[in-house]
Amino acid sequence: MRLSRLLLASSLILFPTAAGAEEGMWTFDNFPIAAANRDLGVSIDQKWLDRVRLASVRLGSASGGLVSAEGLILTNEHVASRCVEDLSKPERNYVQTGFTPQSRAEERLCPGMVAEILTDISDVTARMHAAGAGLGGEAFIKARDAEAAKIETEACGSDKTRRCQVVTLYRGGQFKLYTYRRYADVRLAFAPEHRASAFGGDLDNFSFPRFAVDAAFVRIYENDRPVRTPGFLRWNPAPPQENQPVFLSGSPGATQRLLTQAQLGTVQDVTLPLEQLINSELRGRLLRFSHENERNAFIAGQAISSIENVYKRGFGRQQSLIDERFMAGRAQTEANLRQRVQADPALRQSIGDPWTDLAKLQEEIVRLYPGYYMLEVRAGGGSQLYNWAKDLVRGAQERPKANADRLPEYGDARLAQVENGLLAARPTYPELDEVQLAWWLSKVREILTVDDPRIAQLLGKESPEQLADRLTRGTKLGDPALRRTLWEGGLTAVQASNDPLIQFLLKIQDVTRSTRTDYEGKVQAPTDRASEALAKARFAVFGTSLYPDATGTLRLTYGRLRGWTRLGRTVPYATTFGGLWQRATGAEPFDVAPRLLAAKDKITASTILNVAASTDTIGGSSGSPAVNAKGEIIGANFDSTVLTQRNAYGYDPELNRSVLVTTSAVTAALRHAYGQSHLLRELGVR
Amino acid sequence: MRLSRLLLASSLILFPTAAGAEEGMWTFDNFPIAAANRDLGVSIDQKWLDRVRLASVRLGSASGGLVSAEGLILTNEHVASRCVEDLSKPERNYVQTGFTPQSRAEERLCPGMVAEILTDISDVTARMHAAGAGLGGEAFIKARDAEAAKIETEACGSDKTRRCQVVTLYRGGQFKLYTYRRYADVRLAFAPEHRASAFGGDLDNFSFPRFAVDAAFVRIYENDRPVRTPGFLRWNPAPPQENQPVFLSGSPGATQRLLTQAQLGTVQDVTLPLEQLINSELRGRLLRFSHENERNAFIAGQAISSIENVYKRGFGRQQSLIDERFMAGRAQTEANLRQRVQADPALRQSIGDPWTDLAKLQEEIVRLYPGYYMLEVRAGGGSQLYNWAKDLVRGAQERPKANADRLPEYGDARLAQVENGLLAARPTYPELDEVQLAWWLSKVREILTVDDPRIAQLLGKESPEQLADRLTRGTKLGDPALRRTLWEGGLTAVQASNDPLIQFLLKIQDVTRSTRTDYEGKVQAPTDRASEALAKARFAVFGTSLYPDATGTLRLTYGRLRGWTRLGRTVPYATTFGGLWQRATGAEPFDVAPRLLAAKDKITASTILNVAASTDTIGGSSGSPAVNAKGEIIGANFDSTVLTQRNAYGYDPELNRSVLVTTSAVTAALRHAYGQSHLLRELGVR
Repeated sequence: MRLSRLLLASSLILFPTAAGAEEGMWTFDNFPIAAANRDLGVSIDQKWLDRVRLASVRLGSASGGLVSAEGLILTNEHVASRCVEDLSKPERNYVQTGFTPQSRAEERLCPGMVAEILTDISDVTARMHAAGAGLGGEAFIKARDAEAAKIETEACGSDKTRRCQVVTLYRGGQFKLYTYRRYADVRLAFAPEHRASAFGGDLDNFSFPRFAVDAAFVRIYENDRPVRTPGFLRWNPAPPQENQPVFLSGSPGATQRLLTQAQLGTVQDVTLPLEQLINSELRGRLLRFSHENERNAFIAGQAISSIENVYKRGFGRQQSLIDERFMAGRAQTEANLRQRVQADPALRQSIGDPWTDLAKLQEEIVRLYPGYYMLEVRAGGGSQLYNWAKDLVRGAQERPKANADRLPEYGDARLAQVENGLLAARPTYPELDEVQLAWWLSKVREILTVDDPRIAQLLGKESPEQLADRLTRGTKLGDPALRRTLWEGGLTAVQASNDPLIQFLLKIQDVTRSTRTDYEGKVQAPTDRASEALAKARFAVFGTSLYPDATGTLRLTYGRLRGWTRLGRTVPYATTFGGLWQRATGAEPFDVAPRLLAAKDKITASTILNVAASTDTIGGSSGSPAVNAKGEIIGANFDSTVLTQRNAYGYDPELNRSVLVTTSAVTAALRHAYGQSHLLRELGVR
Repeated sequence: MRLSRLLLASSLILFPTAAGAEEGMWTFDNFPIAAANRDLGVSIDQKWLDRVRLASVRLGSASGGLVSAEGLILTNEHVASRCVEDLSKPERNYVQTGFTPQSRAEERLCPGMVAEILTDISDVTARMHAAGAGLGGEAFIKARDAEAAKIETEACGSDKTRRCQVVTLYRGGQFKLYTYRRYADVRLAFAPEHRASAFGGDLDNFSFPRFAVDAAFVRIYENDRPVRTPGFLRWNPAPPQENQPVFLSGSPGATQRLLTQAQLGTVQDVTLPLEQLINSELRGRLLRFSHENERNAFIAGQAISSIENVYKRGFGRQQSLIDERFMAGRAQTEANLRQRVQADPALRQSIGDPWTDLAKLQEEIVRLYPGYYMLEVRAGGGSQLYNWAKDLVRGAQERPKANADRLPEYGDARLAQVENGLLAARPTYPELDEVQLAWWLSKVREILTVDDPRIAQLLGKESPEQLADRLTRGTKLGDPALRRTLWEGGLTAVQASNDPLIQFLLKIQDVTRSTRTDYEGKVQAPTDRASEALAKARFAVFGTSLYPDATGTLRLTYGRLRGWTRLGRTVPYATTFGGLWQRATGAEPFDVAPRLLAAKDKITASTILNVAASTDTIGGSSGSPAVNAKGEIIGANFDSTVLTQRNAYGYDPELNRSVLVTTSAVTAALRHAYGQSHLLRELGVR
């Protein structure tokens, strides 16, 4: 919007040279300290940055912040909810009751959860560029993957207490080696009832005003003792003020701000609509499944939240992509950059014309994306059992190979990650997997069409429903001991297994792997090469004061606690518990969580519950600690507004708002609703 | 494609003055006899046209053709399948077995089915234009509706053997009074197993090559005797030849070829995506429901076919709308017309600038369409019980008013139609209605958002699931006698009813009616006025040799039996039974219907089963008799290809193909698989 409004207001040709105030999900090694201090009227420094970085925790695809010297981490309930479900059974359901231990001894392991803290960043751009130089197609992808695996293994070996990851920034303009301290014993320390976090359900998701106690605590352990974390963020439960400066430190997932117009056209016309349409059908299947009985409602809870979240995010993005004023800004930015490159013969010579290269490539993407998406990205439809079978089969096939020859996700430095998910003692509900697999198999057949030869290899003579039924009824992979036996037994054990899911995954490796290789060689490689050229052009023209697209790695963004005005309606920056009582109807999803409701008389109605902030965030920022200029934690990000989904494509200071749960609200809930005095003491709250 | 290819091939500015060869769904009173004779090398005349018109039958939103002197009508199995389901029970299921009476006495009434034959067309344009002159907004809509009701009642009164309908053509450029002979006693005479018609299921729907015996017979009765129909189309079972001329006479539903670029943009970005996304979710809910058990699979069969058909059609249209080459032709046509108007001061003066008027209106449509669509167009989500309750409540509220003041669907001349549907003795399955209502209510809330005041009026404090459950459990409207009592008892009886669905419909009338009125006044009226001006411009520039958009009324289209070539692949014009045996896998949906399969050795493998034709069709053309130049029937249209969904926006001679089942195939099936010798005798086949 920023650009397009300016375009409407003037006929000047603009040459944006850097991000506007409050825009940007910055890497910690390129954070604009001076600009942030100027914009916010504060004075943070490198020491502040280092401290905040070391107190920021990646939790899978979400975030958290250290809040005590004994490894306690504040995150969102919706980040911990998979753990809460894993620890629950239909008959003892922490999702409904909350998980409220009375002492540290009662904290319980979250199956598969890993916490990572970023300890070091080093530049490996030269090595990665050299590895791909002069290559194209699948050879380019293989060479790059091999170099990344080599760098990671050189740095971390198979040390399970560290994780080394080669991170692609600026779509290939830079590569950095990120080294994390890794903690694989993460325990649930507190979660309210899911209802407290999900008040308003899917309807209020991606909205503000909002009334959600979307907070939970986990704790990192080593050798069965809490990890010492003296550099934690001090808990500040004071009511946050309007316009107060705020920083969010977390791991936003993925933005697409550096895509060209041609690439965005494909997102708008092809990839996003495909994803939305089939996800919408999965949503329908899961909703009906969950309505069948209470057990199914319990089983499908997490899968439904997840698909509804993905769907609504996509819906918001579709709205952004048809907002002509908003998108005009992007088009203008691209035109400006092209013009600058065009006007500089040396630059033109070294850059070439990546815009045209990418535009020409789109027809190939239209042709290959559906198969790649269905057979690789969405394979299994989210089925946990399928994913385990895939890791067992591919892991067994890849591990005997030299590190550099493997699929990158099975490189030595990444195996700890795979093992962690595979061997986690999680409950399974094959009836849910059946819904997911039947959906996936039927959509693969529909989208690739029945005459695609890959379909016969996938289905044989069975219908999607028959196959899904047979696989989920017959598999024993729900047993973690069996998974461990197969993992440790390697390819011999896997090939000897008569488990139908293992057999199925073995059977479809040819078709899924060749689809992936085809896409990587024909689409990913040329896209990466052109993107690298584009990044060079941007650095040459605008300098290095640019932030890269989000990639699920640690970033810092800054802004203020602010509401907004749109179409004549002004939304204040904060909501209170009083607002929650008012919005409640008693009927789902507007029923207040019972333990919160029981504390209604004790919680001061004016206590600030949620706030909006002009920070620049995207999915994955959930749980990011909200930090003030003094380095104290004042809340945790848990959502953004649906209008903010345009954040995937660009930042709009008038409308982009992150949504946070405040430490003041968490303090009140811990004290009055959940009796967590031991946690309050640990947080230093009287 | 036609236009865009020309545009690519030359830089001439084109002024298309009339439709190209084989393009157009022509009205019978403006059929281009000379052009058709020239294009096809045949010599039809007005007498031929009259005879074909009087042998063409509208069956609800589909078509059929008279094939004997005793009221026998050939249509598609998928057109009759609602009737087959209505006559079936889970334990005696004609959907599975086929309906194969051995004599006329066994033919059975299709509940609610009506057959209509167009007997007269007269021009009422002047009256309709005069009625709306000088008016705007809701007043314009009311005046037009009142005038149409007046014209219809003047012509038909409440004569149930006739139907009078004021038909809007050229989006308001013309209005015609269509008078039909109406038959409300339509009986099922033959249907194969549904599997014979639906071989390939949703996967093969909208495709060719195709292998479907999608044919059924119904018969019209009066006073319990077959109607005498001496003007029938003679049955010609000879194998159809490639490039043979063919005419289709049927009632195509709706095309959007006269929409402006701005209107198409709204279809592409707003209305079609909304519909596709929510229909996709309904599809998922219904599929899961049908997977729960065999009974549910039976119950939901028709609803699933219907939603999958709508979804796939929408999918094809979305593909067309992003086909730049195809859509460029439309843009050019519009630019040409604007230029011609611009160049003619008198015309410009009388036409104004309807393009700009329509463009400005789109923002209002974006704002109002979701509410109108959800609360009026899609209200009830397809629930039969809901639709009955709506007709009872609205009918009771409207009938006491003067004819001209009513909602037009309850005008005197249309009440027979309403009654017919309402009082039909159809089975109901409230568990299916519950799925449909829960879907609808939850989508209304999601799309309008929970803070829209209409939602509170709709749901009160109940959740969509609770409300759907309460309404479908409590209603007694499945009983046709109760529906008759309430219909005849009028408003007093309806208001006194404690049926929860009736009470719900009464409660929501304010909100649904005001949403409709708002949309009609702010969107429909200005759209109609601008469209009228556009039609005037087209007539002025191009003369009257234009065909109007399809509107569910009788049309004639012509072409040849032809395959096509695309991306180097050539598809022949015909398929055979031999091809069916080859494509069969035995697994659903590629399992051959049992009775057909049992006749495999008797049916000559080279018998032509389905053919493709270059005729110009769209949804609603299903069952259209395919007639040769001698006026003999050679098949029935039942589908088109998915590429043909662009037909909504324009005709493409290279790719547009209708798909027909041949009389040769039907003859072989009747004889060898279904033992219908009495029907074969009636068809005059030895």
